[in-house]
Amino acid sequence: MSGQKFKEKVRTVIFGHETKAGRAFDEILIISILVSVGVVMLDSVQEYNVRYGALLHGIEWFFTIVFTVEYLLRLYSSSKKRAYAWSFFGVVDLIAILPTYLALFIPGGHYFAVVRILRVLRVFRILKFSRYVSESRVLMQALKNSRSKVVVFLLAVLTITIILGSLMFIIEGEMNGFTSIPRSVYWAIVTLTTVGYGDISPRTPLGQALSILLMLIGYGIIAVPTGIVSAELTRRKIDRKRTRSCPACSNEEHDPDAGFCKHCGHKLTDFRAGRKASAAQ
Amino acid sequence: MSGQKFKEKVRTVIFGHETKAGRAFDEILIISILVSVGVVMLDSVQEYNVRYGALLHGIEWFFTIVFTVEYLLRLYSSSKKRAYAWSFFGVVDLIAILPTYLALFIPGGHYFAVVRILRVLRVFRILKFSRYVSESRVLMQALKNSRSKVVVFLLAVLTITIILGSLMFIIEGEMNGFTSIPRSVYWAIVTLTTVGYGDISPRTPLGQALSILLMLIGYGIIAVPTGIVSAELTRRKIDRKRTRSCPACSNEEHDPDAGFCKHCGHKLTDFRAGRKASAAQ
Amino acid sequence: MSGQKFKEKVRTVIFGHETKAGRAFDEILIISILVSVGVVMLDSVQEYNVRYGALLHGIEWFFTIVFTVEYLLRLYSSSKKRAYAWSFFGVVDLIAILPTYLALFIPGGHYFAVVRILRVLRVFRILKFSRYVSESRVLMQALKNSRSKVVVFLLAVLTITIILGSLMFIIEGEMNGFTSIPRSVYWAIVTLTTVGYGDISPRTPLGQALSILLMLIGYGIIAVPTGIVSAELTRRKIDRKRTRSCPACSNEEHDPDAGFCKHCGHKLTDFRAGRKASAAQ
Amino acid sequence: MSGQKFKEKVRTVIFGHETKAGRAFDEILIISILVSVGVVMLDSVQEYNVRYGALLHGIEWFFTIVFTVEYLLRLYSSSKKRAYAWSFFGVVDLIAILPTYLALFIPGGHYFAVVRILRVLRVFRILKFSRYVSESRVLMQALKNSRSKVVVFLLAVLTITIILGSLMFIIEGEMNGFTSIPRSVYWAIVTLTTVGYGDISPRTPLGQALSILLMLIGYGIIAVPTGIVSAELTRRKIDRKRTRSCPACSNEEHDPDAGFCKHCGHKLTDFRAGRKASAAQ
Repeated sequence: MSGQKFKEKVRTVIFGHETKAGRAFDEILIISILVSVGVVMLDSVQEYNVRYGALLHGIEWFFTIVFTVEYLLRLYSSSKKRAYAWSFFGVVDLIAILPTYLALFIPGGHYFAVVRILRVLRVFRILKFSRYVSESRVLMQALKNSRSKVVVFLLAVLTITIILGSLMFIIEGEMNGFTSIPRSVYWAIVTLTTVGYGDISPRTPLGQALSILLMLIGYGIIAVPTGIVSAELTRRKIDRKRTRSCPACSNEEHDPDAGFCKHCGHKLTDFRAGRKASAAQ
Repeated sequence: MSGQKFKEKVRTVIFGHETKAGRAFDEILIISILVSVGVVMLDSVQEYNVRYGALLHGIEWFFTIVFTVEYLLRLYSSSKKRAYAWSFFGVVDLIAILPTYLALFIPGGHYFAVVRILRVLRVFRILKFSRYVSESRVLMQALKNSRSKVVVFLLAVLTITIILGSLMFIIEGEMNGFTSIPRSVYWAIVTLTTVGYGDISPRTPLGQALSILLMLIGYGIIAVPTGIVSAELTRRKIDRKRTRSCPACSNEEHDPDAGFCKHCGHKLTDFRAGRKASAAQ
Repeated sequence: MSGQKFKEKVRTVIFGHETKAGRAFDEILIISILVSVGVVMLDSVQEYNVRYGALLHGIEWFFTIVFTVEYLLRLYSSSKKRAYAWSFFGVVDLIAILPTYLALFIPGGHYFAVVRILRVLRVFRILKFSRYVSESRVLMQALKNSRSKVVVFLLAVLTITIILGSLMFIIEGEMNGFTSIPRSVYWAIVTLTTVGYGDISPRTPLGQALSILLMLIGYGIIAVPTGIVSAELTRRKIDRKRTRSCPACSNEEHDPDAGFCKHCGHKLTDFRAGRKASAAQ
Repeated sequence: MSGQKFKEKVRTVIFGHETKAGRAFDEILIISILVSVGVVMLDSVQEYNVRYGALLHGIEWFFTIVFTVEYLLRLYSSSKKRAYAWSFFGVVDLIAILPTYLALFIPGGHYFAVVRILRVLRVFRILKFSRYVSESRVLMQALKNSRSKVVVFLLAVLTITIILGSLMFIIEGEMNGFTSIPRSVYWAIVTLTTVGYGDISPRTPLGQALSILLMLIGYGIIAVPTGIVSAELTRRKIDRKRTRSCPACSNEEHDPDAGFCKHCGHKLTDFRAGRKASAAQ
């Protein structure tokens, strides 16, 4: 087999998702990623680290070498090596293997653990080409369209929490845990988002009254982002139905009950009429 | 009464929901299930177990015998005994009675208690044929249609919590309760879903800042599953109307109660009329 | 003024909401209700009870006498005295005054306090006839239409929490606060609804893993009731637009783009055409 | 440069958002506001106050003087000085600078800190003229339309929490933290809104049963405000499309981008064209 052909084959398997070998590679890769992330997580547990440290270390090295080979093959088979190396997933691929090598020279296990955790992002590389891609595109599009509404919403949330948080700093004071404005704002966000840890909670009647206000605001305005996204997704669903195309100008955005193209005024052929006509030919 | 006839009658009463006796049986069964589940729950309370142990034990045996008779009758009257025995509800029916008998030979009250609790699933057997069935079918369908969007959403949630949880493990560290990555991820999910137990909570300013980010994400992206299901259910409502086409102009947007085409005034044929007509041909 | 006329006048003021005096009476009544509820609440605070006990007691008696006079006037002016006395609001009106008199003979302040609190329900009597009535009717209708879906949903929630709660009872056990199945189910509901007090929280890794599942379920399925109500309200909004009536059969449920009545096939007159025609006559 | 011309120029830069200088001024102002708010927040932290007190004090004075100059320039260049001074943003502008001067004469750092925090509101002055304005107008309009529904909803929430809170006051009593009705109502709202601090939580079985009811209500009725806003926003989206009528057939359901009537194929006149045409007549 010539080098060029081999390179192409490698590329089809590693980057592609259409061939049987490509899909098998994808599946093995996803499992490897999840297992290696699991190993990093378990290794951070004191107990397991002490008991199974050597085993976990071994598995870690096994996956690092596997991922290193994979990374080199990607670099080798890529037609635009530089573009790959600097792409988002290229950098993630590199970051997934570096910490294990660096740990040989530099101590700092905790930090490297987190960097290794970023491997989980590699799962999205495979999802990117799967049947989930159109779903996530719909979600991203809906979020994107709602973006400026969301910015306004977040700004309102921050303003409310900054002002009410500062007020609570005065009302409750240091004795009750509201030791500074940033900490009071932290409490206000914990309350508004209905998380409610309870690490800080109002004790004075006035503070409790104000926090009731904050809770009701938080409970109520959750409706706003929800409503925005709901409306966006509902609209998209209704929009998607417009599938007939105009025979004159090929425009496709027609309502189901349209009789004429709204862009050029040409008569639209009915679905069935169209089908009958093509059957008759 | 011949054996065959008796068998049929039993089947009508036990499996059927149309006859008066069948409905009475359903109602008695639902009450028995709920009472027996209640008894299992009460029996797990130390105090009641000590005080009313014998009574609860007696009731438990009473229901076990009732359910055993019911199970045997179901087996006896079922035309496809094997299919019933291995069906989901057949297995649940068996599981509902086994633990009480097993407890005679094997100790392990706690575990049997939980198995007995599974009786609660039997309520759905009756609901399956009630007026709620179409409602739950609508809900299941909406959830099914949203499935792949929900998978993408869950994956995003898990990725966010794994990465931010790991980061918190470094920032907060063991002194503040973030003893390992799995535990930090647990905290991240507690925070993102706005549950907020408060058993672990950030104490450093940096950790609190990061958890504010996580809370705002959690507060905001709840809008996504909500929006998905809302859009799905709204679409279904609108869709259900588009069911008949006008024989004259082929327009399809008729309400279910329409007798004439709203665009050309032609009489619409009724669903059933149409079916009868084609059957007559 | 004759007795009959006076009775009628009283009825207009007390039960009516159209006259100036009737509206003034409503406003005074709402304020009285809110103030008297506030007094009951304050009186339950140890500190205020000790310091301002006599004053609060005086105010309580003042409102009780006012409400008694009002109750007697309602009884007197009502044309169907019995129907009023046994109606929901009639009973609430009576309950609002009884405890204060009973307290003269029977001790039990705590219990009477709660009964007095029920006065707050009287606010809805007045709202019943205000401009909010149509709004609340829309909400009630939407909730009513969604009722059977909500029942299915609640049943699913209870089944999930009973089964997962029982499982946690075994996994976590008494040492970690899961002392009985009812208590574990209580914890499961606290978690699923994202309330998360933190009075009971999982400590074992397995328990935390299971509670992550429960949190994600709770975070996700909140979408279901929200989606149901959103879809219901959205449909209602769209429905309300159908306002043209057929000149032949007076049916009013036409889509905005309908050209012919869908019930009798009669041509629908256009809005403007209709207006022009009537202007020309 | 004449005084009048200078005044106009200042006004364009300070109040305007169209010129390059005006936009640059806006950007600098937003950054100044955010930094000065940050300084106020940091200054409230004991630790930073001790260590960097002098520096923070210096920065505070710097921004106060900057904002004072800005305020005077606004007053000077405003054509309606009085209207500006008494407008919402005029008062906020004044409040943003006063505390620092007052602190020279009157002690009371905590209180002044909160007043200074109100500077954050000034950010909205600039947003008012940015591309976010239409977004926030849509949100405000949706909230406004839902207002009376929201009032009914809030009233229902308060009634539920007052009644159930009072009931818990009796059931749980003082030993378990439910020391008074207001405190119990506070707990009920903490629970209903799913915040769940855990500072007060039910301990008796009956109390836990009642709080389960409250949690399920809270978990369920969040659907109501969400549904209201969703329906409102969805309707707006659909409404926005129905804006032009066909001059031939008077059909009104045209998309904003339609050039021809979709029902009869007649050319649609453009909005502006229509206006021009009527102006020419």
